[in-house]
Amino acid sequence: MVPNSLKPNVFDANCDSQQILSLIANKWTALVICTLAQDTKRYNELQREIGGISQKMLTQTLRNLEANGLVERKVYPVVPPKVEYSLTPLGDTLTELLQSVCRWAEQHLSELNAAKASYDKSMVR
Amino acid sequence: MVPNSLKPNVFDANCDSQQILSLIANKWTALVICTLAQDTKRYNELQREIGGISQKMLTQTLRNLEANGLVERKVYPVVPPKVEYSLTPLGDTLTELLQSVCRWAEQHLSELNAAKASYDKSMVR
Repeated sequence: MVPNSLKPNVFDANCDSQQILSLIANKWTALVICTLAQDTKRYNELQREIGGISQKMLTQTLRNLEANGLVERKVYPVVPPKVEYSLTPLGDTLTELLQSVCRWAEQHLSELNAAKASYDKSMVR
Repeated sequence: MVPNSLKPNVFDANCDSQQILSLIANKWTALVICTLAQDTKRYNELQREIGGISQKMLTQTLRNLEANGLVERKVYPVVPPKVEYSLTPLGDTLTELLQSVCRWAEQHLSELNAAKASYDKSMVR
């Protein structure tokens, strides 16, 4: 039996799994993974498809995902250089989960908007 | 048929569903929802159980979740005041999904650590 202290635990700030949770429970990570789940993409394609992402944020998100083995960056030695991003098999194990998170946001939009309106009204009273 | 422009789309920065995605695809949201999934909790219990969360971040996360109808805050008129937090039925529809995200982080810790080590080594070369 593994002692409790050795079991990964996202509730423990000193456990690396909490940093992994930061990486995957993140809007831009979700949108990048869901976009790459469809196909290998070039940088400009990702930026075009993910509304609202800045160049800085996209670069940082891709580098973080690559550093953690979730995304593969492939550079083709051509002029001008061609760089493609794709999911690794490990990254792909997140696809279904993060697609569900995105779908939840879309499917519950009207309920959350209604809750927000009623909360705002209660704050005015 | 609903025209495409009216369908919620998390890839559209002008669609409110992208803000909802920001709210739910978030480390602290995931940890708060997973903690409240077990039981109603008081503020201090949440702070004790969620390692690494600051008072400011916990307050902000709870307020955001309450404003969006995912968490209910109940104040009992006693001295000293007793405040309890619980999931609303809408918030509870996220439980399984966010528990899976937390579990993914715990289960893939060693794979991500290995990928990270190999990436760091490749950067030194």
